[in-house]
Amino acid sequence: MSLLVVGTVAFDSVATPHGRVERVLGGSATYFSFAASFFTPVRLVSVVGEDFPDEFMAVLRQRRVDLTGLARVPGKTFSWSGSYEGAMNEARTLDVQLNVYGDFSPELPAAYRDSQYLFLANGSPASQMRVLDQVRQPRLVVADTMNLWIERTPDELKRLLPRVHVLVLNEGEARLLSGEPNLIAAGERILALGPRAVIVKKGEHGALLLARAGGRCALPAFPVAHVVDPTGAGDSFAGGMMGFLARNDLNDTAALRRAMIFGTLMSSFVVEGFSLAPFQRIGEAEIWNRYHEYIRFITV
Amino acid sequence: MSLLVVGTVAFDSVATPHGRVERVLGGSATYFSFAASFFTPVRLVSVVGEDFPDEFMAVLRQRRVDLTGLARVPGKTFSWSGSYEGAMNEARTLDVQLNVYGDFSPELPAAYRDSQYLFLANGSPASQMRVLDQVRQPRLVVADTMNLWIERTPDELKRLLPRVHVLVLNEGEARLLSGEPNLIAAGERILALGPRAVIVKKGEHGALLLARAGGRCALPAFPVAHVVDPTGAGDSFAGGMMGFLARNDLNDTAALRRAMIFGTLMSSFVVEGFSLAPFQRIGEAEIWNRYHEYIRFITV
Repeated sequence: MSLLVVGTVAFDSVATPHGRVERVLGGSATYFSFAASFFTPVRLVSVVGEDFPDEFMAVLRQRRVDLTGLARVPGKTFSWSGSYEGAMNEARTLDVQLNVYGDFSPELPAAYRDSQYLFLANGSPASQMRVLDQVRQPRLVVADTMNLWIERTPDELKRLLPRVHVLVLNEGEARLLSGEPNLIAAGERILALGPRAVIVKKGEHGALLLARAGGRCALPAFPVAHVVDPTGAGDSFAGGMMGFLARNDLNDTAALRRAMIFGTLMSSFVVEGFSLAPFQRIGEAEIWNRYHEYIRFITV
Repeated sequence: MSLLVVGTVAFDSVATPHGRVERVLGGSATYFSFAASFFTPVRLVSVVGEDFPDEFMAVLRQRRVDLTGLARVPGKTFSWSGSYEGAMNEARTLDVQLNVYGDFSPELPAAYRDSQYLFLANGSPASQMRVLDQVRQPRLVVADTMNLWIERTPDELKRLLPRVHVLVLNEGEARLLSGEPNLIAAGERILALGPRAVIVKKGEHGALLLARAGGRCALPAFPVAHVVDPTGAGDSFAGGMMGFLARNDLNDTAALRRAMIFGTLMSSFVVEGFSLAPFQRIGEAEIWNRYHEYIRFITV
Protein backbone atom coordinates (compact mmCIF):
# COMPACT_ATOMS: atom_id res chain seq x y z
CA MET A 1 0.00 0.00 0.00
CA SER A 2 1.05 3.58 -0.61
CA LEU A 3 3.38 5.09 1.99
CA LEU A 4 3.88 8.84 2.27
CA VAL A 5 6.39 10.76 4.39
CA VAL A 6 6.53 14.50 4.98
CA GLY A 7 9.68 15.82 6.65
CA THR A 8 13.11 17.28 6.03
CA VAL A 9 15.69 16.56 3.37
CA ALA A 10 18.86 18.12 4.66
CA PHE A 11 22.58 18.67 4.72
CA ASP A 12 24.00 17.18 7.92
CA SER A 13 27.37 17.88 9.50
CA VAL A 14 28.10 15.44 12.29
CA ALA A 15 30.98 14.79 14.70
CA THR A 16 31.12 11.62 16.81
CA PRO A 17 33.96 9.89 18.69
CA HIS A 18 34.44 7.84 15.50
CA GLY A 19 34.86 10.64 12.98
CA ARG A 20 33.16 13.59 11.33
CA VAL A 21 31.37 14.36 8.10
CA GLU A 22 30.39 17.67 6.45
CA ARG A 23 27.23 18.41 4.46
CA VAL A 24 26.26 14.81 3.86
CA LEU A 25 22.73 13.74 2.88
CA GLY A 26 20.41 13.72 5.89
CA GLY A 27 16.98 14.78 7.14
CA SER A 28 14.06 12.96 8.70
CA ALA A 29 12.25 12.22 5.42
CA THR A 30 15.48 10.97 3.88
CA TYR A 31 16.27 8.47 6.64
CA PHE A 32 12.65 7.38 6.82
CA SER A 33 12.45 6.85 3.06
CA PHE A 34 15.67 4.88 2.86
CA ALA A 35 14.67 2.53 5.68
CA ALA A 36 11.13 2.05 4.35
CA SER A 37 12.31 1.55 0.78
CA PHE A 38 13.58 -1.94 1.63
CA PHE A 39 9.94 -2.93 2.15
CA THR A 40 7.83 -0.78 -0.16
CA PRO A 41 8.02 2.24 -2.50
CA VAL A 42 7.87 5.60 -0.73
CA ARG A 43 6.37 8.96 -1.66
CA LEU A 44 8.37 11.85 -0.24
CA VAL A 45 7.17 15.40 0.35
CA SER A 46 9.78 18.00 1.26
CA VAL A 47 11.67 20.98 -0.04
CA VAL A 48 15.31 21.63 -0.91
CA GLY A 49 17.21 24.66 -2.18
CA GLU A 50 19.11 25.33 -5.38
CA ASP A 51 22.27 24.10 -3.67
CA PHE A 52 20.92 20.55 -3.36
CA PRO A 53 23.12 18.44 -5.66
CA ASP A 54 21.81 16.18 -8.40
CA GLU A 55 23.79 13.26 -7.04
CA PHE A 56 21.75 13.35 -3.81
CA MET A 57 18.57 13.26 -5.91
CA ALA A 58 19.97 10.25 -7.73
CA VAL A 59 20.77 8.49 -4.45
CA LEU A 60 17.14 8.86 -3.36
CA ARG A 61 15.78 7.74 -6.72
CA GLN A 62 17.92 4.62 -6.70
CA ARG A 63 16.00 3.49 -3.62
CA ARG A 64 12.59 3.68 -5.32
CA VAL A 65 11.76 6.97 -3.57
CA ASP A 66 9.13 8.90 -5.55
CA LEU A 67 10.33 12.51 -5.62
CA THR A 68 7.27 14.07 -7.29
CA GLY A 69 6.60 15.82 -3.98
CA LEU A 70 10.15 17.12 -3.47
CA ALA A 71 10.14 20.82 -4.35
CA ARG A 72 13.36 22.52 -5.38
CA VAL A 73 13.09 26.26 -4.79
CA PRO A 74 15.34 29.32 -4.77
CA GLY A 75 17.46 29.52 -1.63
CA LYS A 76 19.47 27.13 0.50
CA THR A 77 18.65 23.64 1.74
CA PHE A 78 17.86 22.97 5.42
CA SER A 79 21.09 22.18 7.25
CA TRP A 80 21.83 20.69 10.64
CA SER A 81 25.07 20.34 12.51
CA GLY A 82 25.51 18.29 15.67
CA SER A 83 27.83 16.17 17.75
CA TYR A 84 27.64 13.11 19.99
CA GLU A 85 29.79 12.04 22.94
CA GLY A 86 30.21 9.03 25.22
CA ALA A 87 27.38 6.56 24.86
CA MET A 88 25.99 8.88 22.14
CA ASN A 89 22.44 8.71 23.44
CA GLU A 90 21.77 12.35 22.70
CA ALA A 91 22.82 14.74 19.98
CA ARG A 92 24.13 18.17 20.83
CA THR A 93 22.81 20.50 18.15
CA LEU A 94 25.52 22.97 17.16
CA ASP A 95 23.64 24.75 14.41
CA VAL A 96 20.33 24.64 12.54
CA GLN A 97 19.61 26.63 9.40
CA LEU A 98 15.97 26.21 8.38
CA ASN A 99 16.58 28.03 5.07
CA VAL A 100 13.94 27.06 2.48
CA TYR A 101 12.27 24.74 5.00
CA GLY A 102 11.37 27.76 7.12
CA ASP A 103 8.66 28.91 4.70
CA PHE A 104 7.62 25.43 3.62
CA SER A 105 3.91 24.78 3.62
CA PRO A 106 3.59 21.20 2.43
CA GLU A 107 1.35 20.84 -0.62
CA LEU A 108 0.69 17.24 -1.58
CA PRO A 109 0.67 16.37 -5.29
CA ALA A 110 -2.86 15.33 -6.28
CA ALA A 111 -1.66 11.76 -6.85
CA TYR A 112 -0.52 11.51 -3.20
CA ARG A 113 -3.86 12.37 -1.59
CA ASP A 114 -5.00 8.78 -1.61
CA SER A 115 -1.95 7.66 0.45
CA GLN A 116 -2.91 4.93 2.91
CA TYR A 117 0.12 5.04 5.24
CA LEU A 118 1.35 8.43 6.38
CA PHE A 119 4.39 9.42 8.44
CA LEU A 120 4.46 12.98 9.74
CA ALA A 121 8.12 13.39 10.63
CA ASN A 122 9.05 15.91 13.31
CA GLY A 123 7.65 19.32 12.37
CA SER A 124 5.31 21.95 13.79
CA PRO A 125 1.95 20.45 14.78
CA ALA A 126 0.31 23.11 12.57
CA SER A 127 2.16 21.93 9.47
CA GLN A 128 1.55 18.28 10.41
CA MET A 129 -2.15 19.11 10.63
CA ARG A 130 -2.07 20.79 7.21
CA VAL A 131 -0.69 17.59 5.72
CA LEU A 132 -3.32 15.47 7.43
CA ASP A 133 -6.03 17.73 6.00
CA GLN A 134 -4.84 16.91 2.48
CA VAL A 135 -4.92 13.13 2.80
CA ARG A 136 -8.32 11.56 2.12
CA GLN A 137 -8.68 8.52 4.33
CA PRO A 138 -5.38 7.16 5.60
CA ARG A 139 -5.36 3.69 7.16
CA LEU A 140 -2.50 4.59 9.50
CA VAL A 141 -1.12 7.97 10.57
CA VAL A 142 2.10 7.99 12.57
CA ALA A 143 3.61 11.24 13.85
CA ASP A 144 6.89 12.23 15.46
CA THR A 145 7.40 15.36 17.54
CA MET A 146 10.09 17.03 19.65
CA ASN A 147 10.76 19.17 22.73
CA LEU A 148 10.46 22.39 20.73
CA TRP A 149 6.78 21.78 19.83
CA ILE A 150 5.90 20.31 23.21
CA GLU A 151 7.15 23.50 24.85
CA ARG A 152 6.19 26.14 22.28
CA THR A 153 2.96 24.87 20.73
CA PRO A 154 1.40 22.49 23.26
CA ASP A 155 -2.16 23.45 22.28
CA GLU A 156 -1.63 22.73 18.58
CA LEU A 157 0.04 19.44 19.52
CA LYS A 158 -2.92 18.46 21.68
CA ARG A 159 -5.29 19.23 18.82
CA LEU A 160 -3.20 17.04 16.52
CA LEU A 161 -2.92 13.99 18.78
CA PRO A 162 -6.53 12.75 18.54
CA ARG A 163 -6.10 12.67 14.74
CA VAL A 164 -2.92 10.59 14.93
CA HIS A 165 -3.00 6.81 15.32
CA VAL A 166 0.53 6.38 16.65
CA LEU A 167 2.78 8.98 18.23
CA VAL A 168 6.50 8.16 18.27
CA LEU A 169 8.79 10.19 20.48
CA ASN A 170 11.90 9.68 22.54
CA GLU A 171 12.23 9.11 26.28
CA GLY A 172 12.89 12.71 27.27
CA GLU A 173 10.08 13.97 25.05
CA ALA A 174 7.63 11.46 26.56
CA ARG A 175 8.53 12.67 30.05
CA LEU A 176 8.22 16.32 29.00
CA LEU A 177 4.88 15.90 27.23
CA SER A 178 3.33 13.92 30.09
CA GLY A 179 5.02 15.54 33.08
CA GLU A 180 5.68 12.01 34.36
CA PRO A 181 9.18 10.67 35.06
CA ASN A 182 8.02 7.03 34.99
CA LEU A 183 7.91 5.99 31.32
CA ILE A 184 5.00 3.57 31.65
CA ALA A 185 2.90 6.20 33.41
CA ALA A 186 4.10 8.78 30.88
CA GLY A 187 2.94 6.58 28.01
CA GLU A 188 -0.47 6.06 29.62
CA ARG A 189 -0.94 9.80 30.01
CA ILE A 190 -0.02 10.40 26.38
CA LEU A 191 -2.55 7.75 25.31
CA ALA A 192 -5.17 9.75 27.16
CA LEU A 193 -4.37 12.71 24.85
CA GLY A 194 -5.78 10.87 21.87
CA PRO A 195 -3.48 8.57 19.92
CA ARG A 196 -4.35 4.86 19.68
CA ALA A 197 -0.75 3.98 20.53
CA VAL A 198 2.47 5.60 21.64
CA ILE A 199 5.97 4.34 20.93
CA VAL A 200 8.79 5.59 23.15
CA LYS A 201 12.21 5.35 21.49
CA LYS A 202 14.99 4.72 24.01
CA GLY A 203 18.10 4.58 21.81
CA GLU A 204 20.45 1.83 23.00
CA HIS A 205 17.68 0.56 25.30
CA GLY A 206 15.21 -0.16 22.51
CA ALA A 207 11.59 0.88 22.25
CA LEU A 208 8.41 0.66 24.26
CA LEU A 209 4.88 0.39 22.86
CA LEU A 210 1.79 1.31 24.82
CA ALA A 211 -1.54 0.93 23.06
CA ARG A 212 -5.15 1.45 24.08
CA ALA A 213 -6.92 -1.66 25.23
CA GLY A 214 -3.82 -2.72 27.14
CA GLY A 215 -1.44 -3.66 24.34
CA ARG A 216 2.05 -3.24 25.75
CA CYS A 217 5.36 -4.40 24.39
CA ALA A 218 9.05 -3.63 24.87
CA LEU A 219 11.80 -4.46 22.41
CA PRO A 220 15.49 -4.16 23.21
CA ALA A 221 17.75 -2.54 20.65
CA PHE A 222 19.72 -4.90 18.42
CA PRO A 223 23.17 -5.21 20.06
CA VAL A 224 25.50 -3.00 18.02
CA ALA A 225 28.98 -2.97 19.54
CA HIS A 226 30.31 -0.20 17.33
CA VAL A 227 27.93 2.72 16.94
CA VAL A 228 29.51 5.19 14.51
CA ASP A 229 26.76 7.81 14.20
CA PRO A 230 23.28 7.65 15.76
CA THR A 231 21.87 10.35 13.44
CA GLY A 232 18.67 9.19 11.78
CA ALA A 233 18.15 6.17 14.04
CA GLY A 234 14.68 7.31 15.11
CA ASP A 235 13.47 8.08 11.59
CA SER A 236 14.96 4.81 10.32
CA PHE A 237 13.06 3.02 13.07
CA ALA A 238 9.83 4.64 11.88
CA GLY A 239 10.74 3.85 8.26
CA GLY A 240 11.39 0.15 8.89
CA MET A 241 8.23 -0.11 10.95
CA MET A 242 5.94 1.66 8.49
CA GLY A 243 7.57 0.04 5.48
CA PHE A 244 6.63 -3.35 6.92
CA LEU A 245 3.09 -2.24 7.75
CA ALA A 246 2.47 -0.64 4.36
CA ARG A 247 3.91 -3.61 2.47
CA ASN A 248 1.59 -6.00 4.33
CA ASP A 249 -1.34 -3.57 4.61
CA LEU A 250 -1.63 -3.94 8.37
CA ASN A 251 -2.54 -1.38 11.01
CA ASP A 252 -3.62 -3.29 14.14
CA THR A 253 -1.70 -3.41 17.42
CA ALA A 254 -0.44 -6.96 16.96
CA ALA A 255 1.05 -5.98 13.61
CA LEU A 256 2.56 -2.85 15.16
CA ARG A 257 4.50 -5.05 17.60
CA ARG A 258 5.91 -7.16 14.78
CA ALA A 259 6.60 -4.06 12.71
CA MET A 260 8.68 -2.60 15.54
CA ILE A 261 11.15 -5.43 14.97
CA PHE A 262 11.84 -4.13 11.47
CA GLY A 263 12.13 -0.61 12.83
CA THR A 264 14.65 -1.89 15.36
CA LEU A 265 16.66 -3.64 12.65
CA MET A 266 16.76 -0.67 10.29
CA SER A 267 17.90 1.66 13.06
CA SER A 268 20.59 -0.86 14.05
CA PHE A 269 22.01 -0.75 10.53
CA VAL A 270 21.97 3.00 10.11
CA VAL A 271 23.99 3.73 13.26
CA GLU A 272 26.88 1.59 11.98
CA GLY A 273 28.11 4.34 9.66
CA PHE A 274 27.71 8.02 8.77
CA SER A 275 24.73 9.35 6.82
CA LEU A 276 23.00 6.75 4.63
CA ALA A 277 26.14 4.72 3.96
CA PRO A 278 25.01 1.61 5.90
CA PHE A 279 21.80 1.40 3.86
CA GLN A 280 23.83 1.52 0.68
CA ARG A 281 25.75 -1.58 1.73
CA ILE A 282 22.82 -3.85 2.63
CA GLY A 283 20.04 -5.76 0.90
CA GLU A 284 17.25 -8.17 1.83
CA ALA A 285 19.73 -10.90 2.82
CA GLU A 286 21.40 -8.73 5.48
CA ILE A 287 18.03 -7.69 6.89
CA TRP A 288 16.80 -11.27 7.20
CA ASN A 289 20.08 -12.49 8.69
CA ARG A 290 19.89 -9.80 11.30
CA TYR A 291 16.20 -10.57 11.84
CA HIS A 292 17.01 -14.15 12.81
CA GLU A 293 19.90 -13.05 15.02
CA TYR A 294 17.60 -10.56 16.72
CA ILE A 295 14.90 -13.14 17.34
CA ARG A 296 17.50 -15.35 19.05
CA PHE A 297 18.61 -12.32 21.06
CA ILE A 298 15.15 -11.58 22.45
CA THR A 299 13.88 -15.14 22.86
CA VAL A 300 14.10 -16.75 26.30
CA MET B 1 20.31 -27.35 45.42
CA SER B 2 21.90 -25.33 48.21
CA LEU B 3 22.02 -21.55 47.67
CA LEU B 4 24.35 -19.35 49.72
CA VAL B 5 24.51 -15.55 49.83
CA VAL B 6 27.14 -13.42 51.54
CA GLY B 7 26.36 -9.71 51.85
CA THR B 8 24.87 -7.04 54.07
CA VAL B 9 21.92 -7.13 56.43
CA ALA B 10 21.20 -3.49 57.16
CA PHE B 11 19.04 -0.67 58.41
CA ASP B 12 17.92 1.45 55.46
CA SER B 13 16.55 4.97 55.54
CA VAL B 14 15.11 5.94 52.19
CA ALA B 15 13.38 8.98 50.72
CA THR B 16 11.65 8.85 47.32
CA PRO B 17 9.04 11.06 45.64
CA HIS B 18 6.45 8.65 47.09
CA GLY B 19 7.43 8.78 50.76
CA ARG B 20 10.18 8.04 53.24
CA VAL B 21 11.05 5.30 55.71
CA GLU B 22 13.55 5.20 58.61
CA ARG B 23 15.67 2.25 59.72
CA VAL B 24 13.69 -0.39 57.88
CA LEU B 25 15.09 -3.85 57.10
CA GLY B 26 17.47 -3.74 54.12
CA GLY B 27 20.85 -4.91 52.86
CA SER B 28 21.97 -6.84 49.80
CA ALA B 29 21.82 -10.28 51.45
CA THR B 30 18.36 -9.52 52.80
CA TYR B 31 16.86 -8.53 49.46
CA PHE B 32 18.60 -11.42 47.72
CA SER B 33 17.36 -13.95 50.29
CA PHE B 34 13.79 -12.74 50.19
CA ALA B 35 13.60 -12.89 46.40
CA ALA B 36 15.31 -16.29 46.20
CA SER B 37 13.23 -17.75 49.01
CA PHE B 38 10.20 -17.99 46.72
CA PHE B 39 12.10 -20.64 44.76
CA THR B 40 14.42 -22.43 47.20
CA PRO B 41 15.74 -22.26 50.79
CA VAL B 42 18.62 -19.81 51.29
CA ARG B 43 21.70 -19.82 53.51
CA LEU B 44 22.67 -16.32 54.58
CA VAL B 45 26.09 -15.21 55.82
CA SER B 46 26.35 -11.72 57.27
CA VAL B 47 26.78 -9.81 60.50
CA VAL B 48 24.53 -7.51 62.52
CA GLY B 49 24.99 -5.57 65.75
CA GLU B 50 23.28 -5.77 69.11
CA ASP B 51 20.75 -3.18 67.93
CA PHE B 52 19.31 -5.57 65.34
CA PRO B 53 15.78 -6.33 66.50
CA ASP B 54 14.41 -9.82 67.00
CA GLU B 55 11.42 -9.04 64.82
CA PHE B 56 13.72 -8.54 61.81
CA MET B 57 15.26 -11.96 62.53
CA ALA B 58 11.77 -13.39 62.63
CA VAL B 59 10.87 -11.78 59.30
CA LEU B 60 13.86 -13.48 57.66
CA ARG B 61 13.14 -16.85 59.28
CA GLN B 62 9.55 -16.78 58.07
CA ARG B 63 10.88 -16.85 54.52
CA ARG B 64 12.88 -20.07 55.03
CA VAL B 65 16.17 -18.15 55.33
CA ASP B 66 18.75 -20.19 57.23
CA LEU B 67 20.39 -17.77 59.68
CA THR B 68 23.10 -20.12 61.04
CA GLY B 69 25.63 -17.88 59.28
CA LEU B 70 24.25 -14.58 60.57
CA ALA B 71 26.56 -13.38 63.34
CA ARG B 72 25.26 -10.97 65.97
CA VAL B 73 28.17 -9.12 67.54
CA PRO B 74 28.74 -6.16 69.89
CA GLY B 75 28.30 -2.84 68.11
CA LYS B 76 25.86 -1.33 65.67
CA THR B 77 24.32 -2.78 62.49
CA PHE B 78 25.39 -1.54 59.05
CA SER B 79 23.15 1.34 58.05
CA TRP B 80 22.50 3.10 54.76
CA SER B 81 20.59 6.22 53.98
CA GLY B 82 19.72 7.41 50.49
CA SER B 83 17.26 9.20 48.27
CA TYR B 84 15.88 8.96 44.74
CA GLU B 85 14.48 11.61 42.41
CA GLY B 86 12.72 11.85 39.06
CA ALA B 87 12.85 8.55 37.18
CA MET B 88 14.67 7.11 40.24
CA ASN B 89 17.29 5.34 38.16
CA GLU B 90 20.06 6.13 40.62
CA ALA B 91 20.25 6.37 44.39
CA ARG B 92 21.94 9.34 46.01
CA THR B 93 23.72 7.98 49.07
CA LEU B 94 23.32 10.38 51.97
CA ASP B 95 25.08 8.35 54.62
CA VAL B 96 26.75 4.96 55.12
CA GLN B 97 27.76 3.58 58.51
CA LEU B 98 29.67 0.32 58.08
CA ASN B 99 29.63 -0.30 61.84
CA VAL B 100 30.09 -4.04 62.61
CA TYR B 101 30.27 -4.79 58.88
CA GLY B 102 33.54 -2.83 58.67
CA ASP B 103 35.51 -5.55 60.48
CA PHE B 104 33.53 -8.43 59.07
CA SER B 105 35.61 -11.29 57.71
CA PRO B 106 33.07 -13.84 56.54
CA GLU B 107 33.51 -17.28 58.10
CA LEU B 108 31.25 -19.92 56.63
CA PRO B 109 29.68 -22.43 58.99
CA ALA B 110 31.10 -25.90 58.21
CA ALA B 111 27.71 -27.03 56.96
CA TYR B 112 27.71 -24.28 54.30
CA ARG B 113 30.98 -25.25 52.64
CA ASP B 114 29.29 -27.66 50.27
CA SER B 115 27.01 -24.92 48.89
CA GLN B 116 26.43 -25.41 45.17
CA TYR B 117 25.07 -21.97 44.24
CA LEU B 118 26.86 -18.94 45.59
CA PHE B 119 26.04 -15.24 45.39
CA LEU B 120 28.76 -12.83 46.42
CA ALA B 121 26.81 -9.63 46.94
CA ASN B 122 28.61 -6.32 46.56
CA GLY B 123 31.66 -6.25 48.85
CA SER B 124 35.42 -5.85 48.61
CA PRO B 125 36.93 -8.26 46.08
CA ALA B 126 39.28 -9.45 48.85
CA SER B 127 36.39 -10.47 51.09
CA GLN B 128 34.54 -12.01 48.14
CA MET B 129 37.70 -14.05 47.44
CA ARG B 130 37.88 -15.19 51.07
CA VAL B 131 34.35 -16.55 50.78
CA LEU B 132 35.14 -18.32 47.53
CA ASP B 133 38.15 -19.98 49.20
CA GLN B 134 35.86 -21.55 51.77
CA VAL B 135 33.39 -23.14 49.36
CA ARG B 136 34.45 -26.54 48.07
CA GLN B 137 33.18 -26.92 44.52
CA PRO B 138 30.35 -24.57 43.68
CA ARG B 139 28.38 -25.23 40.49
CA LEU B 140 27.67 -21.54 39.96
CA VAL B 141 29.34 -18.45 41.41
CA VAL B 142 27.70 -15.09 40.74
CA ALA B 143 29.26 -11.86 42.02
CA ASP B 144 28.13 -8.25 42.19
CA THR B 145 30.48 -5.28 42.52
CA MET B 146 30.36 -1.48 42.54
CA ASN B 147 32.20 1.71 41.55
CA LEU B 148 34.08 1.82 44.84
CA TRP B 149 35.91 -1.47 44.21
CA ILE B 150 36.40 -0.82 40.50
CA GLU B 151 38.17 2.42 41.38
CA ARG B 152 39.95 1.50 44.62
CA THR B 153 40.88 -2.18 44.23
CA PRO B 154 40.97 -2.88 40.48
CA ASP B 155 43.77 -5.45 40.81
CA GLU B 156 41.93 -7.52 43.43
CA LEU B 157 38.80 -7.33 41.30
CA LYS B 158 40.70 -8.57 38.26
CA ARG B 159 42.07 -11.49 40.28
CA LEU B 160 38.55 -12.35 41.39
CA LEU B 161 36.86 -12.25 37.98
CA PRO B 162 38.38 -15.43 36.48
CA ARG B 163 37.02 -17.34 39.49
CA VAL B 164 33.51 -16.00 39.03
CA HIS B 165 31.07 -17.55 36.56
CA VAL B 166 28.74 -14.58 36.24
CA LEU B 167 29.41 -10.94 37.10
CA VAL B 168 26.34 -8.76 37.60
CA LEU B 169 26.76 -5.01 37.66
CA ASN B 170 24.86 -1.93 36.63
CA GLU B 171 25.24 0.17 33.49
CA GLY B 172 27.53 2.80 34.93
CA GLU B 173 29.72 0.19 36.61
CA ALA B 174 30.06 -1.76 33.36
CA ARG B 175 31.19 1.40 31.58
CA LEU B 176 33.62 2.24 34.38
CA LEU B 177 35.13 -1.24 34.61
CA SER B 178 35.58 -1.57 30.85
CA GLY B 179 36.38 2.02 29.93
CA GLU B 180 33.84 1.60 27.09
CA PRO B 181 30.74 3.80 26.73
CA ASN B 182 29.01 1.30 24.39
CA LEU B 183 27.38 -1.34 26.62
CA ILE B 184 27.79 -4.24 24.21
CA ALA B 185 31.48 -3.49 23.76
CA ALA B 186 31.77 -2.94 27.52
CA GLY B 187 30.29 -6.36 28.19
CA GLU B 188 32.65 -8.02 25.71
CA ARG B 189 35.65 -6.41 27.42
CA ILE B 190 34.47 -7.58 30.82
CA LEU B 191 34.08 -11.13 29.49
CA ALA B 192 37.73 -10.96 28.47
CA LEU B 193 38.58 -10.39 32.15
CA GLY B 194 37.49 -13.89 33.04
CA PRO B 195 33.83 -14.48 33.87
CA ARG B 196 31.81 -16.87 31.70
CA ALA B 197 29.00 -14.34 31.51
CA VAL B 198 28.22 -10.76 32.44
CA ILE B 199 24.80 -9.34 33.22
CA VAL B 200 24.34 -5.58 32.97
CA LYS B 201 21.43 -4.29 35.04
CA LYS B 202 19.77 -1.24 33.49
CA GLY B 203 16.99 -0.42 35.94
CA GLU B 204 13.81 0.61 34.10
CA HIS B 205 15.45 -0.55 30.84
CA GLY B 206 15.88 -4.16 31.94
CA ALA B 207 18.98 -6.32 31.75
CA LEU B 208 21.51 -7.46 29.20
CA LEU B 209 23.34 -10.80 29.20
CA LEU B 210 26.60 -11.38 27.36
CA ALA B 211 28.12 -14.83 27.61
CA ARG B 212 31.21 -16.46 26.15
CA ALA B 213 30.57 -18.41 23.00
CA GLY B 214 28.27 -15.68 21.75
CA GLY B 215 25.26 -16.10 24.03
CA ARG B 216 23.54 -12.73 24.13
CA CYS B 217 20.15 -11.78 25.41
CA ALA B 218 18.29 -8.64 26.45
CA LEU B 219 15.22 -8.52 28.63
CA PRO B 220 13.13 -5.40 29.18
CA ALA B 221 12.03 -4.56 32.70
CA PHE B 222 8.49 -5.57 33.63
CA PRO B 223 6.38 -2.41 33.10
CA VAL B 224 5.77 -0.96 36.56
CA ALA B 225 3.82 2.30 36.32
CA HIS B 226 4.22 3.20 39.99
CA VAL B 227 7.74 2.69 41.32
CA VAL B 228 7.72 3.50 45.03
CA ASP B 229 11.31 2.64 46.02
CA PRO B 230 13.98 1.08 43.78
CA THR B 231 16.16 0.03 46.73
CA GLY B 232 17.08 -3.65 46.51
CA ALA B 233 15.97 -4.09 42.89
CA GLY B 234 19.39 -5.35 41.78
CA ASP B 235 19.79 -7.83 44.63
CA SER B 236 16.21 -9.01 44.17
CA PHE B 237 17.00 -9.56 40.50
CA ALA B 238 19.98 -11.72 41.47
CA GLY B 239 17.87 -13.52 44.07
CA GLY B 240 15.07 -14.40 41.68
CA MET B 241 17.56 -15.51 39.05
CA MET B 242 19.67 -17.67 41.35
CA GLY B 243 16.66 -19.02 43.23
CA PHE B 244 15.35 -20.36 39.93
CA LEU B 245 18.74 -21.82 38.95
CA ALA B 246 19.35 -23.46 42.33
CA ARG B 247 15.84 -24.88 42.49
CA ASN B 248 16.26 -26.51 39.07
CA ASP B 249 19.99 -27.24 39.44
CA LEU B 250 20.93 -25.46 36.22
CA ASN B 251 24.00 -23.42 35.39
CA ASP B 252 24.26 -23.24 31.59
CA THR B 253 23.75 -20.12 29.49
CA ALA B 254 20.33 -21.14 28.16
CA ALA B 255 19.11 -21.58 31.74
CA LEU B 256 20.64 -18.24 32.71
CA ARG B 257 18.49 -16.53 30.08
CA ARG B 258 15.33 -18.13 31.45
CA ALA B 259 16.43 -17.44 35.01
CA MET B 260 16.76 -13.73 34.20
CA ILE B 261 13.00 -13.65 33.69
CA PHE B 262 12.50 -14.56 37.35
CA GLY B 263 15.08 -11.99 38.36
CA THR B 264 13.17 -9.41 36.34
CA LEU B 265 9.88 -10.37 38.00
CA MET B 266 11.23 -10.30 41.56
CA SER B 267 12.79 -6.87 41.03
CA SER B 268 9.51 -5.63 39.55
CA PHE B 269 7.68 -6.60 42.72
CA VAL B 270 10.17 -5.16 45.17
CA VAL B 271 10.13 -1.64 43.68
CA GLU B 272 6.37 -1.37 44.25
CA GLY B 273 6.81 -0.61 47.94
CA PHE B 274 9.34 0.29 50.61
CA SER B 275 11.76 -2.25 52.09
CA LEU B 276 10.56 -5.88 51.84
CA ALA B 277 6.86 -5.03 52.06
CA PRO B 278 6.01 -6.09 48.49
CA PHE B 279 7.51 -9.56 49.09
CA GLN B 280 5.37 -9.93 52.17
CA ARG B 281 2.24 -9.42 50.09
CA ILE B 282 2.90 -11.96 47.32
CA GLY B 283 3.02 -15.72 46.83
CA GLU B 284 3.50 -18.19 43.99
CA ALA B 285 0.22 -17.19 42.33
CA GLU B 286 1.26 -13.54 41.96
CA ILE B 287 4.64 -14.56 40.55
CA TRP B 288 3.11 -16.86 37.93
CA ASN B 289 0.44 -14.33 36.97
CA ARG B 290 3.12 -11.73 36.41
CA TYR B 291 5.24 -14.30 34.57
CA HIS B 292 2.49 -14.82 32.00
CA GLU B 293 1.88 -11.10 31.70
CA TYR B 294 5.60 -10.55 31.15
CA ILE B 295 5.82 -13.22 28.47
CA ARG B 296 2.99 -11.48 26.59
CA PHE B 297 4.85 -8.18 27.05
CA ILE B 298 8.08 -9.43 25.46
CA THR B 299 6.62 -11.69 22.78
CA VAL B 300 6.27 -10.30 19.26
